[in-house]
Amino acid sequence: MVPNCNPVGSNLKSGEYTLGRFDPVNGQNWNRAYHYNKDLISEFADKINPDMDISELKKEYRSRLRASIEERLNNEWGVGLAECLNLKLQLMALEADIVLDLHNGPVSTRHIYVPEYARESAKYFNIPHVILINKVFSGALDEATFCPWWCLTDSLMERFPGSEWDFGIEAFTVEMGSQEVIDFDAGKADSKGILSYLSYKKCFETPLQKPENITRYGVYLRDYKIMYSRFGGMVEYVAKPGQFIKKGELMAQVLNIDLLDDEQAISFVKAPCDLIPILHFPSASVLGGTQLYKCFTNYFEI
Amino acid sequence: MVPNCNPVGSNLKSGEYTLGRFDPVNGQNWNRAYHYNKDLISEFADKINPDMDISELKKEYRSRLRASIEERLNNEWGVGLAECLNLKLQLMALEADIVLDLHNGPVSTRHIYVPEYARESAKYFNIPHVILINKVFSGALDEATFCPWWCLTDSLMERFPGSEWDFGIEAFTVEMGSQEVIDFDAGKADSKGILSYLSYKKCFETPLQKPENITRYGVYLRDYKIMYSRFGGMVEYVAKPGQFIKKGELMAQVLNIDLLDDEQAISFVKAPCDLIPILHFPSASVLGGTQLYKCFTNYFEI
Amino acid sequence: MVPNCNPVGSNLKSGEYTLGRFDPVNGQNWNRAYHYNKDLISEFADKINPDMDISELKKEYRSRLRASIEERLNNEWGVGLAECLNLKLQLMALEADIVLDLHNGPVSTRHIYVPEYARESAKYFNIPHVILINKVFSGALDEATFCPWWCLTDSLMERFPGSEWDFGIEAFTVEMGSQEVIDFDAGKADSKGILSYLSYKKCFETPLQKPENITRYGVYLRDYKIMYSRFGGMVEYVAKPGQFIKKGELMAQVLNIDLLDDEQAISFVKAPCDLIPILHFPSASVLGGTQLYKCFTNYFEI
Amino acid sequence: MVPNCNPVGSNLKSGEYTLGRFDPVNGQNWNRAYHYNKDLISEFADKINPDMDISELKKEYRSRLRASIEERLNNEWGVGLAECLNLKLQLMALEADIVLDLHNGPVSTRHIYVPEYARESAKYFNIPHVILINKVFSGALDEATFCPWWCLTDSLMERFPGSEWDFGIEAFTVEMGSQEVIDFDAGKADSKGILSYLSYKKCFETPLQKPENITRYGVYLRDYKIMYSRFGGMVEYVAKPGQFIKKGELMAQVLNIDLLDDEQAISFVKAPCDLIPILHFPSASVLGGTQLYKCFTNYFEI
Repeated sequence: MVPNCNPVGSNLKSGEYTLGRFDPVNGQNWNRAYHYNKDLISEFADKINPDMDISELKKEYRSRLRASIEERLNNEWGVGLAECLNLKLQLMALEADIVLDLHNGPVSTRHIYVPEYARESAKYFNIPHVILINKVFSGALDEATFCPWWCLTDSLMERFPGSEWDFGIEAFTVEMGSQEVIDFDAGKADSKGILSYLSYKKCFETPLQKPENITRYGVYLRDYKIMYSRFGGMVEYVAKPGQFIKKGELMAQVLNIDLLDDEQAISFVKAPCDLIPILHFPSASVLGGTQLYKCFTNYFEI
Repeated sequence: MVPNCNPVGSNLKSGEYTLGRFDPVNGQNWNRAYHYNKDLISEFADKINPDMDISELKKEYRSRLRASIEERLNNEWGVGLAECLNLKLQLMALEADIVLDLHNGPVSTRHIYVPEYARESAKYFNIPHVILINKVFSGALDEATFCPWWCLTDSLMERFPGSEWDFGIEAFTVEMGSQEVIDFDAGKADSKGILSYLSYKKCFETPLQKPENITRYGVYLRDYKIMYSRFGGMVEYVAKPGQFIKKGELMAQVLNIDLLDDEQAISFVKAPCDLIPILHFPSASVLGGTQLYKCFTNYFEI
Repeated sequence: MVPNCNPVGSNLKSGEYTLGRFDPVNGQNWNRAYHYNKDLISEFADKINPDMDISELKKEYRSRLRASIEERLNNEWGVGLAECLNLKLQLMALEADIVLDLHNGPVSTRHIYVPEYARESAKYFNIPHVILINKVFSGALDEATFCPWWCLTDSLMERFPGSEWDFGIEAFTVEMGSQEVIDFDAGKADSKGILSYLSYKKCFETPLQKPENITRYGVYLRDYKIMYSRFGGMVEYVAKPGQFIKKGELMAQVLNIDLLDDEQAISFVKAPCDLIPILHFPSASVLGGTQLYKCFTNYFEI
Repeated sequence: MVPNCNPVGSNLKSGEYTLGRFDPVNGQNWNRAYHYNKDLISEFADKINPDMDISELKKEYRSRLRASIEERLNNEWGVGLAECLNLKLQLMALEADIVLDLHNGPVSTRHIYVPEYARESAKYFNIPHVILINKVFSGALDEATFCPWWCLTDSLMERFPGSEWDFGIEAFTVEMGSQEVIDFDAGKADSKGILSYLSYKKCFETPLQKPENITRYGVYLRDYKIMYSRFGGMVEYVAKPGQFIKKGELMAQVLNIDLLDDEQAISFVKAPCDLIPILHFPSASVLGGTQLYKCFTNYFEI
């Protein structure tokens, strides 16, 4: 099932380009209003004993999670547009053991957000750049999917030391490149990686695809850094997404069009440490304080 | 000193109206990127003994706060535009004992955000609607101003039971009505209330103004509720800002222009409880999930 | 029949307000892409002799006009979005003898655009401000409706001096006030004026409404003037829509927020001649060169 | 001298991309409000006799043109923002014999607008795609520059048959590719072509550059066609700018994301005749009626 999580955003235009992930009315990110009820976890864990059947537990927990989302949806004071769309999508996602949130964004390499406990699964997508995230909820669908199960597992392992609990839930945000470029062939290549992962998870009777033999680089979320522009102007992005850049190398040059006759017209942006730029701002025109790049630092092979 | 906290936002247009409080590039609220370093509070409290001179303490604490802001401003990876503007403004505000953040927004009554400990001060503004807030930081200037002092005070009172600490810091967000209506006479009336408060705080040798004898209604932040539209369409806002509305009374009627020939064309929005609408969405055209009203519920005289 | 001429525009938001009459993608006014084929008029007039039956003529001419619109709609290279919507609406309007294009816009009085030949009809709407327009086509629906008939009439009168031709076609653009204010009672009052006009045109067996006894002011389009702001800043609109303003009187004051400490902070906008402001810009924030007011000059009672 | 003709547009953002050539407030194209006073031409031609000194004539005519622009700038009712910026730029351009208006736009090849009388000059730029335009004024700077001189020349040749008048004025709009891609090396290559043209026009004591030996394709403006999308959806632009496309070949495929499970999900856009696509819409997300491509048809070598 492939629902479209922001039916509003994909049709909105303001200028020729796609507004994408922000509600133009109030700045709300369309993908950050999912539901997470922390209290529900310990309430539920309190009632569990270690001999219970895990599939029964899973069923029961799911129905609690569903009730919590539905209660929010039926809020007497109404629900915001982004939240309403998110909750309806979350109700669908709740039924699934595997949730893939397929995103497009600015100019970028393919990259994927992976919960640390599912690190092994990252090797089955054909995606070279992997961001490992912890059980912190900040509103996204992947977090909304795995946090309740991850936290429940931790809570149960604390209560019953030595016990093991595997609910078999995995969720990923898969970043598929620029929202302003459609390429049907690239789409086919992307789908092979997804089929490879699903084959690994035994979703098909016989595996459909094997993972490609590529090097995958991982980074912890805290080391996935935003580089802000210090200058406004017109930018040439010299460092391309996916390149290995050494500390001090040129990443971008910014032309200040008010100083065209001047030696000072061009500013140079250099790498503050060894890094891999993963994405850059999609426009050549930036203000001071624009997110120029997002970069892997302290990365490692996985 | 009257700095303009969003020099970018006040010039931006997208359509004829003012974009106002959101960065059109990334949805960032221009007023929610102030700095708050929670760790700094207990670090500082650790080094205090109850005999220290409070004005020395205040000076020392301010310089720590300043250093923390400056460190963030000088971040090797740069700083986002909203954050950069906010931090520069915060450095100015840090020197002041009294900080008033003057806002304009949608169609609204005059209302004011007041930290609970400064509740008495609310009686000296000529503002009938008062929202009492706790020491929770969510990015705004008033919170960024009073939270470090309020939390320090609490921390010290915990360490030294029975001690008293008054750093004399107060900060308020003052909502001055619609961003799309300028009225010089209303501006003069507003300034009288501010002078009244400043007179009460002994900012002038002789008081310049006394507060007006009006009824002031207070509400705790948790009871200041957003009402979302359940329908898209064209809205008549029947309940006006400041009116007392009883549970079940008509607040708005929404016309669905796709159903003009139909009995069902008009939907009625009723009050879910006794309330005072404080502001409504500035436009007559809404989507389902639009913030229609913000309302006082469980309000009381103060 | 009440079709909605810009289904796209009424749903688009960019910020909280309504984008309204411009396509945000390419600046196209949603109401200025109607079709007018000048050549068709003389081609048709060539084949007429003065003894022909006028209702037959009308039928035949209509089918030519329809064919011309349909040909454009079926253009091998496609048709722009605004034009496509306009043409489909124009095909509906073509069947009618009376076309009322109901508009909303900025902050304004009720006013109406009336072709000069239908001046008498202006007395049957309850609208105090009347703009008389000539047979110049600039893309709007009312012009697209009456220009082909008006020009045909003129062409026939030239060919057959002394002959008279009345095809009974009238079209008006009726400006119903602000797009950001919905008021169901005002809607009822507006509909009375429309019923009064339709009663005068014998659309009902017995007249439903009589026109109100109000003074109506007319102006020729060339005397309906735009006043541009010379300064950017925050504006108080002192002259209200519909007021009689004398030459030299204050119309607006503009506050330059970068000069708040300065005597020069306020600029005054004065009337260059006797005038009636009909509408003003809907926002308090203007740039230099913003359309501040549109005004009747050299107006007269009709 | 390199003035920036839309200082407002280059800083405006609405979403991450550049708004570019439209005023977001009122849809005005920043480059279409130049001044052209048709009456001035015949008034001036009336006073000329064929023996007058051409450089004197040129000086006198220029001062009339300047007076006409200045009169408009000093309009008692003010001037719109785009028009004001345009007029100030036009006053600068008026002093020059050669005016190059350097544009950036959507995804495109380099192309150039050339007045038909200056067709020879097109061979000295290194630009493969040339649009030949006639003396029709539609608001642009190049037209505003050459129309008064071209029309004066024609008017004089009509009055004095057999006479020859060469005022030596040329103006071009040079389209330099995407506004969202800055490439310093491409900038250097572009400047060589400009230096080649200026060398040909003897702007330097010794020629600085020679034109490259490339094939140049010309088209008359009437054959430079817009292709509109018939479907909304996500587009893959298969035909790339500059490619030779045969009638019936695939130009684009449009994916309807509401029909993903359906055979009908993909629509194919085919070339209606032999053509060269020059530019395409910069975004992958289009509505029905979006300008998908602009194409050379009936093109020829020049």
